[in-house]
Amino acid sequence: MAKQKKAPRPKAITPKGFRDYFGPEVSDRAKMMSQIAEVYEHYGFDALESSAVETVEALGKFLPDVDRPNEGVFAWQEFDENDKGDWMALRYDLTAPLARVYAQHRNDLPTPYRRYAMGPVWRNEKPGPGRFKQFYQCDADTVGTASMAADAEICAMLSDTIETLGIARGDFLVRVNNRKVLNGVLEAMGLQDSEGARDNVLRTIDKFDKLGEAGVRALLTKGRLDASGAYIDGVGLTEDQAEPVIAFLTSKADDVVKTFDNLRAAIGASKIGAEGIFELEQIGDLLSAGGYDASRISIDPSVVRGLGYYTGPVYEAELTFEILDEKGRKRQFGSVAGGGRYDDLVKRFTGQAVPATGVSIGIDRLLAALREKGRVGSVTRGPVVVTVMDRDRMADYQVMVTELRNAGIRAEVYLGNPKNFGNQLKYADKRNSPVAVIEGGDEKESGIVQVKDLVLGAKIAQSATLEEWKERPSQFEVPRGDLVAKVREILQGQND
Amino acid sequence: MAKQKKAPRPKAITPKGFRDYFGPEVSDRAKMMSQIAEVYEHYGFDALESSAVETVEALGKFLPDVDRPNEGVFAWQEFDENDKGDWMALRYDLTAPLARVYAQHRNDLPTPYRRYAMGPVWRNEKPGPGRFKQFYQCDADTVGTASMAADAEICAMLSDTIETLGIARGDFLVRVNNRKVLNGVLEAMGLQDSEGARDNVLRTIDKFDKLGEAGVRALLTKGRLDASGAYIDGVGLTEDQAEPVIAFLTSKADDVVKTFDNLRAAIGASKIGAEGIFELEQIGDLLSAGGYDASRISIDPSVVRGLGYYTGPVYEAELTFEILDEKGRKRQFGSVAGGGRYDDLVKRFTGQAVPATGVSIGIDRLLAALREKGRVGSVTRGPVVVTVMDRDRMADYQVMVTELRNAGIRAEVYLGNPKNFGNQLKYADKRNSPVAVIEGGDEKESGIVQVKDLVLGAKIAQSATLEEWKERPSQFEVPRGDLVAKVREILQGQND
Repeated sequence: MAKQKKAPRPKAITPKGFRDYFGPEVSDRAKMMSQIAEVYEHYGFDALESSAVETVEALGKFLPDVDRPNEGVFAWQEFDENDKGDWMALRYDLTAPLARVYAQHRNDLPTPYRRYAMGPVWRNEKPGPGRFKQFYQCDADTVGTASMAADAEICAMLSDTIETLGIARGDFLVRVNNRKVLNGVLEAMGLQDSEGARDNVLRTIDKFDKLGEAGVRALLTKGRLDASGAYIDGVGLTEDQAEPVIAFLTSKADDVVKTFDNLRAAIGASKIGAEGIFELEQIGDLLSAGGYDASRISIDPSVVRGLGYYTGPVYEAELTFEILDEKGRKRQFGSVAGGGRYDDLVKRFTGQAVPATGVSIGIDRLLAALREKGRVGSVTRGPVVVTVMDRDRMADYQVMVTELRNAGIRAEVYLGNPKNFGNQLKYADKRNSPVAVIEGGDEKESGIVQVKDLVLGAKIAQSATLEEWKERPSQFEVPRGDLVAKVREILQGQND
Repeated sequence: MAKQKKAPRPKAITPKGFRDYFGPEVSDRAKMMSQIAEVYEHYGFDALESSAVETVEALGKFLPDVDRPNEGVFAWQEFDENDKGDWMALRYDLTAPLARVYAQHRNDLPTPYRRYAMGPVWRNEKPGPGRFKQFYQCDADTVGTASMAADAEICAMLSDTIETLGIARGDFLVRVNNRKVLNGVLEAMGLQDSEGARDNVLRTIDKFDKLGEAGVRALLTKGRLDASGAYIDGVGLTEDQAEPVIAFLTSKADDVVKTFDNLRAAIGASKIGAEGIFELEQIGDLLSAGGYDASRISIDPSVVRGLGYYTGPVYEAELTFEILDEKGRKRQFGSVAGGGRYDDLVKRFTGQAVPATGVSIGIDRLLAALREKGRVGSVTRGPVVVTVMDRDRMADYQVMVTELRNAGIRAEVYLGNPKNFGNQLKYADKRNSPVAVIEGGDEKESGIVQVKDLVLGAKIAQSATLEEWKERPSQFEVPRGDLVAKVREILQGQND
């Protein structure tokens, strides 16, 4: 670091929209990612890690205001001799880098190429509650095959992954739809060529979950009053025109055969629609063959998925159990993963269409869900703390801690100022330590150590009568040679 | 993504100085990091993950040319209403963010705070062979204690970590020195107040490993001819003045007591030097008590460590076995980790000095070392491939692959164009698949499947005589119901 000339003190703050993660927040996530990686590997997917930095050109995040290519992403211009280097950016997802990697290395990669990738992505957007500018994704994609078996496989893998992470059958659902069916509906409505009307209809469909049939019908036609009393303009379709959309959205039946019949009615004579239905049927058959019934993976026409680049099947995993929102109201946990088929991303680079399909799991949301269910985030046990009674005998305490570690016990020697012994116990408390070891001058002379059960001690302090307190001491005097055995015994007792 | 108006095709290239990592390169690193985390946790260190992005102000990388704060780092200016937002940057190490985090959260963190952090860091510097602009570090630091026990502990932990990763005792050495001893030597030379001369001497000392005693002596005095025949100016000391530096650099003796005697001679009457020697002696005593003798951790005055911010003990782990360099010459593998005590980093934020010490392991170099030793990077076995003989029966193949996966076997169905069967076997070969499963129409009718041992097949193809080939078939016909059992049997045979 170069010298600073009396610069004012820098502020010690996490940059706005980012956060720091401590202890179990980090290790729980690492564990979850390694469990997901194991399922992905099991399905034959190979790991890929590209760097966080890509050229803006490769990411393809070209935005209207060319003076500010960093709208929505973190981007900067490198300097070359003429101060006009490449525009670089932090990846905003793991799909855009995959398209670049596949286009670049396609001659060396197997076809099809099944790959998974895990890591942080960055969005330069206004953060919301629980949403940050850096967050983790775990993606799996299959590049180079148009087979619906690839889509079915990813849905099955997604279902397996969620179960592996400890979310029981019945608490989640993978829902599958196909963009071509939707396009077929639009074709049946005569809207396939009017981009504006089509986009309006798509946006309205996306609100079906919230507004229900009547709300969407109103928005597709004349408009409606929203909850605040404001009047929302409608798309301006006639009731007749709106009918296929409503038929499409409400086509899901208990019986999948009936669902397909309903969809066929909604798409009328549209060829693209029929293709979409055929693809959905193929996926359904493959999943049934694999034993994935509608309780895990379900054909559901109300799944739309926002992203513009999907060209065929789209899928989404949602957790169906209820949680309490920030205002204490019950609501479903909702979506934790989504994806679909995108056949044009590699084409940007090579000019040749390369079919691809893939899913992205939002790790942070899934972790939050598991915390809700009490599956992660149990309090982590701190290290055994060897206290320091005599600072000139650090070497003695060092020997103790080494013995404990060699016995496989997480342990540390107190390294703060040892003058005030109360501070050492406060420290052990803050670390959530299970056991403290004490050896003062007297103990040393007598060849003994004090071993204090901090968990029992805390329990006794909270609730015990004086008698109980006397009967169940939480501090034990043992010969120095029995230190490791006694600590191990106490730790085992705490586990019971 | 917004629409692009006939933009030229983007180039599919990894940004300059970065690279993509495939398959085992990713999983080997993940495994190594999880092994290191386990040792760090065992020593009582807690995980911390801060974001990749920090304010330039917090990172403290202020560089001379203020128009270009991104010299050496990746940095950019955010936009606010007046187009003058904060300068942000990607972290260039894990220590600067730790100082920020500790200053920010110090009231909530235990004192001392032992933390570890792992992740990529970014340097906007000219990349060299094997050096990239993004690379991984695994750091452990103890903040808030001046005790030499903290430094000793980190050296012990570093030694344990390296052994845990599979590098045997004798193949590595942790070397420890103290900056105060070096300052004492400079004081003995009367150079403590002349920054220019001091820096020149330090730079020269850093070359001791390469140039040896005579080379350093020449550079400290009149200068020397380098290998290319160019004359390198000396620092301009007299022979007498250079003597303490040489005494310091050559002070390491077989016996650590003798080393300390030599150091005492080199520092003369310097108080700071004596303090440094006392600290080194404390570290030596603590490590001996823990059973770490000079074959693992050694006091070695020739360790300097480049970074300007070290204020006391400095340490370095090097691998001592020989490898062949790119030109086929034998050389020692060299340094894989380093660190030391830095008491002023938190002070930048708070105004109060906070003592801290820590180490950083260069994961990528260590992985390269383990590859050299054959400890990682053994060829990873690909998935069992269920081939597709009849594309209308994908559901049948799907059932097979599900059965295999449910039995814990990594497996996939072939998803490329199934027309050419040879391509399917080529694909299996590229994936390094151990087994291929084949079920054509005839097999289906007879209720059997073909299971092909690809490892044995490759072996036979390479070396077997016709007779052997007949005797040891690599393809087996089994009843469909025995598929999983047969595949498992073959996989086990390949492991033997």
